[in-house]
Amino acid sequence: MRSFKLLISYDGTNFFGWQTQPGRRTVQETLEGAIASVTGQSVHIISSGRTDTGVHALGQVVAFGAETRLTPHVLLRALNAVLPQDISVQDVSEVHGDFHPTHDVARKRYRYLIHNGPVRDVFRRRYCWHFNQGVLDAEAMHRAALPLIGTHDFSSFETAGSERNSSVRTIFDIFVRRGSGEEKDWITIEVEADGFLYNMVRAIVGTLVEVGRGVEPESWPAEVLRAADRSVAGPTAPPQGLFLVMVDYEERSEGIEE
Amino acid sequence: MRSFKLLISYDGTNFFGWQTQPGRRTVQETLEGAIASVTGQSVHIISSGRTDTGVHALGQVVAFGAETRLTPHVLLRALNAVLPQDISVQDVSEVHGDFHPTHDVARKRYRYLIHNGPVRDVFRRRYCWHFNQGVLDAEAMHRAALPLIGTHDFSSFETAGSERNSSVRTIFDIFVRRGSGEEKDWITIEVEADGFLYNMVRAIVGTLVEVGRGVEPESWPAEVLRAADRSVAGPTAPPQGLFLVMVDYEERSEGIEE
Repeated sequence: MRSFKLLISYDGTNFFGWQTQPGRRTVQETLEGAIASVTGQSVHIISSGRTDTGVHALGQVVAFGAETRLTPHVLLRALNAVLPQDISVQDVSEVHGDFHPTHDVARKRYRYLIHNGPVRDVFRRRYCWHFNQGVLDAEAMHRAALPLIGTHDFSSFETAGSERNSSVRTIFDIFVRRGSGEEKDWITIEVEADGFLYNMVRAIVGTLVEVGRGVEPESWPAEVLRAADRSVAGPTAPPQGLFLVMVDYEERSEGIEE
Repeated sequence: MRSFKLLISYDGTNFFGWQTQPGRRTVQETLEGAIASVTGQSVHIISSGRTDTGVHALGQVVAFGAETRLTPHVLLRALNAVLPQDISVQDVSEVHGDFHPTHDVARKRYRYLIHNGPVRDVFRRRYCWHFNQGVLDAEAMHRAALPLIGTHDFSSFETAGSERNSSVRTIFDIFVRRGSGEEKDWITIEVEADGFLYNMVRAIVGTLVEVGRGVEPESWPAEVLRAADRSVAGPTAPPQGLFLVMVDYEERSEGIEE
């Protein structure tokens, strides 16, 4: 049995999220089907973590084991040939059998895009939150986000009903930045952490937007964090603005040497 | 009767081009329907020119006359509220009744996007030609394109069956440019002219790609131009990479002064 690690992208618009569910088109099921048709084997793939309905991925990482003589390069080409247009495999590598894409995660980065202009962008409408009720103060949002960096109990930013043991996570980096020139109506929010609670980025974004639109002061997101109570945070931002950008692993999980 | 000029964008993916046809979803019909629902009047809109099935517009210009007391600003908001997500109105202005969006065109600019990378981009797949049979030499394509600048008979780059009186047009500007950094797999081709023949940009792009992939020499597009014979040009590039970027009018056609 060989183990493979895949770097994949998907447009989440037409998927009911990651995880296989009866009667729903999901990323997991679509990818497992493609692998089965290429390798002739029924495989079970594991990802770095689930993404919700409508959430996109630039760099999701998944792994599976299969008895196959195909090289990583041939697998990459064959999978892209059989996958539908809204998923692609960016890279395939062979890894040690003990690599676990969920447990071995060291860092993950998410990006959230807000289109803060008066008229919708017809080409990027599926990939942003179109916020057109006034101009957001992105600099205030950035300053308000900085206290979230560090190791904290993020339960204020977790949607109820999830089953985690702990809601303590470490945010390594966070920023809110308005574009310039042709991108001046676009606000990018990025968060990098050792892990994320359910809907955590979308809850942070929804909270920062309350600051950006002047409804809450810059000090508010830090207060929400300290409260450790989901009911005090802002609304959850819609899924279509969210992208899983990158998953980083500990060195010991890296691929097999050539 | 007042006359209005609209600047519109559309994602051409799900339209059978511009012009109303029975049983087909077209941009013209969709826009006329929205204007009728906002103004209560059946109007006939005229555009700067048709776009083909699958071709996009960043800045198409259209005009119509209507008996309405709505201001341009109210019209803009109301139209965007009723239009489907794949069309938007970027600007509305009131113009003189003698403004004609087709006849008064001074310059038009088209952009063509080629994704020249090995794996499809799931987010931009509808808005590019994914060319993955080798790396195109964008610098050679650029040099090969420069002789097209000027006033020439472009009949080599016109799809047969069109009904123009003359196939002489003036190209003011043309370039082929590969992006850098994250955009290094993307090639942008732009052409600005006083007018375009049917499928002219797509025929030019298809011809330049033959140079970029090394099948034809850099001197070839100039030879194709001189031949004035469509059968010698390269294949027509697919529609989904093409965008109408901008339409410019003579000063006399500008809007009514405030």
